[in-house]
Amino acid sequence: MAGQDRVKLAIAGLGTVGAGTIALIEAQGDLLADRAGRGVAVTAVSARDRSRDRGVDLSPFAWWDDPVAMAREADCDVVVELIGGSDGVAKAVCEAAIGAGRHVVTANKALIAHHGAALARAAEAGGVSLGFEAAVAGGIPIIKAIREGLAGNRIERVHGILNGTCNYILTEMRETGRPFAEVLEEAQKLGYAEADPSFDVDGVDAAHKLAILASLAFGTEVDFTSVHIEGIRRIAPLDIDFADELGFKIKLLGIAEKTAEGISQRVHPTMVPVDAPIAAVEGVTNAVETVGDFVGATVLQGAGAGAGPTASAVIADVLDVAAGRRAPVFGVPADRLSAPAPLPMARHEGAYYVRLRVIDRPGVIADVTAVLRDHKVSMESIIQRGRDPEEPVDVVMTTHDTSEAAMQHVLAGIDGLDAVVEPPTVIRIDRS
Amino acid sequence: MAGQDRVKLAIAGLGTVGAGTIALIEAQGDLLADRAGRGVAVTAVSARDRSRDRGVDLSPFAWWDDPVAMAREADCDVVVELIGGSDGVAKAVCEAAIGAGRHVVTANKALIAHHGAALARAAEAGGVSLGFEAAVAGGIPIIKAIREGLAGNRIERVHGILNGTCNYILTEMRETGRPFAEVLEEAQKLGYAEADPSFDVDGVDAAHKLAILASLAFGTEVDFTSVHIEGIRRIAPLDIDFADELGFKIKLLGIAEKTAEGISQRVHPTMVPVDAPIAAVEGVTNAVETVGDFVGATVLQGAGAGAGPTASAVIADVLDVAAGRRAPVFGVPADRLSAPAPLPMARHEGAYYVRLRVIDRPGVIADVTAVLRDHKVSMESIIQRGRDPEEPVDVVMTTHDTSEAAMQHVLAGIDGLDAVVEPPTVIRIDRS
Repeated sequence: MAGQDRVKLAIAGLGTVGAGTIALIEAQGDLLADRAGRGVAVTAVSARDRSRDRGVDLSPFAWWDDPVAMAREADCDVVVELIGGSDGVAKAVCEAAIGAGRHVVTANKALIAHHGAALARAAEAGGVSLGFEAAVAGGIPIIKAIREGLAGNRIERVHGILNGTCNYILTEMRETGRPFAEVLEEAQKLGYAEADPSFDVDGVDAAHKLAILASLAFGTEVDFTSVHIEGIRRIAPLDIDFADELGFKIKLLGIAEKTAEGISQRVHPTMVPVDAPIAAVEGVTNAVETVGDFVGATVLQGAGAGAGPTASAVIADVLDVAAGRRAPVFGVPADRLSAPAPLPMARHEGAYYVRLRVIDRPGVIADVTAVLRDHKVSMESIIQRGRDPEEPVDVVMTTHDTSEAAMQHVLAGIDGLDAVVEPPTVIRIDRS
Repeated sequence: MAGQDRVKLAIAGLGTVGAGTIALIEAQGDLLADRAGRGVAVTAVSARDRSRDRGVDLSPFAWWDDPVAMAREADCDVVVELIGGSDGVAKAVCEAAIGAGRHVVTANKALIAHHGAALARAAEAGGVSLGFEAAVAGGIPIIKAIREGLAGNRIERVHGILNGTCNYILTEMRETGRPFAEVLEEAQKLGYAEADPSFDVDGVDAAHKLAILASLAFGTEVDFTSVHIEGIRRIAPLDIDFADELGFKIKLLGIAEKTAEGISQRVHPTMVPVDAPIAAVEGVTNAVETVGDFVGATVLQGAGAGAGPTASAVIADVLDVAAGRRAPVFGVPADRLSAPAPLPMARHEGAYYVRLRVIDRPGVIADVTAVLRDHKVSMESIIQRGRDPEEPVDVVMTTHDTSEAAMQHVLAGIDGLDAVVEPPTVIRIDRS
């Protein structure tokens, strides 16, 4: 079935995902032709360094030094953008491709999180596809699931483990009792974390993905700037011990909810009940739970990163183009996406875990609880670990449901107490 | 957006799923039009009893007493077949619709399991779609995931919890210690099991779904008759206790594997490690794990039955038709599906759990172990529960990996021993 009518790809960016995509097309040629009704062929490639050995033979493909020129001029139907970054070359490549009437497939979560709505409008106006299955949760077909498989539902909530690096670190910390910095260093050696880990461990990567999922789920323009973002750097082994004691696991969750007051989007360390399905998702695995009004809760889990899984998602988008399957980029036409209507984090309601380091002297607990009382925050439990008049000790408390605004006043008040020696560590509790 | 260009549905069968589908279309009219680019409208309906109150207003729709005539003649683009049954009226409705150039959407797993390849050939020859997302795992978009989302992979294995009734019964048995018959009766009262439960509890329903998944996953013609099927009637509370002791949970799994020697398809009670993701799937929830060569393992879980989830899946197929999205019915064109190449169950390899009721007299265990030795089956453990020279006692053993053929000889040999008072209960162990 492969032949003159093959769909032709120009690939911009030849890192592990680019090389993986070429390897997949080589390995599965006949299968792809059977499934799409036509063959898939790479015709052009572009990367910074032509000489680097990537483990795949690039000689059959036209080489372009300039990926933007390739996107505009190469002999291709689809431009596959695997450069990364929210702006700069990656954005220019996608815009050039759409402008030249080529379909775009990208794994670039930052680009879609920042410019998704504008790119979708341009693609739909130009009659081309813009696929980004690979941008969220690696090989898990969550974009297609929300956009098509669950399209009969109003989605009320989508949440998940969207960053494998953080989930690996939290899993290792729990299983070995080691501190964050040590586990991060090991993750870097194993290739699970970047040399500069901040995008992952500070929650930005998860926030990019969450903003994309929220747009698809709720039919609103991607609104990355409204995502409340906290990372996992401040999680200590002690927090994990306390979580165990309280019947929780700590996960970095991205949570988007549609409420009558607006859309809440937040990424933060979260205590989830140890028997919740999401608590069983360990290591670098990702998982996304979607709640729809007719279907109820659906969970998809799998490999969130890596050359093979990401190439699998890239090719799923390519096969949709090859087979002529079209859907609105964000599930509804881009010109019908609602304007963002963010619910400010201050209006979030929920329960909290707070850990303090305090000088162990009479009256400290009374002072702390007085702050809660003053802001009408109801305490569920308070535990002091150890007694030592010389050294600071750890005190943790959990609250009943309260508002984030009240909680921020409480935290400021506690931080102002003489006996409290470092800023409180806060982890939100989510039982839903 | 709804208007003259709406996609028109004729619905055959107005049970809970039919009524749920009508309710969904009424509730989500604008949303569906936004997502599909055109409205969705029911134009005709057919069922056995016109007068029954189904909680939805049927007066706007043309009523047909004869669903086959409706499929052939009604003013519609899509015939939605929700009658059920592998042959008879349901099959006639689908054939009439395809013959008249109408798309077909069905929730009928028995029909697709028995006649899927022939119907797919007819639909593809006629240029119409045949959607059956609702036939497998209710609202979980597993058909689309395998057919499109994971289409870049060679699938090696697909397995899962495909029958919510059985999973509910096994979950309840474990949590309450009650026997099968009592929990089944309760499930019938709650509406989780049919008055005649045999399709569910004997594994036939799961086998229908497994055969469909295997066809999609491996690109072979649906081959229901090759599925090895065992149900859950013989599972006793004692088996569940022993499973707990041994670190397992008992689940009714459907497992399809592609091997060099052929395709293995089997449905049977299975001991899975208590920390395997699938072990955490409880109650009426379904879950399907797919292993692909590039993507690795992906798990989808959610509601496997019920009016809302099933209607959600029906509508996903309808929206594909409305939006003009087409894929080969079984992932590759029906005339390119491979002929079935079943691996006989006798050649299955794995570990086994066996429970015996024996007269507690000297030499019994020696006789049992001699049978294993004679057939070269290696025992892993043997446990006798209780001692009572008057009454039969329970003995359980587990084996190392062995062949099904050898194991069947062992079971026949054991069953022939004087001291063994009832046929052995066998549960396969699956650690993968």
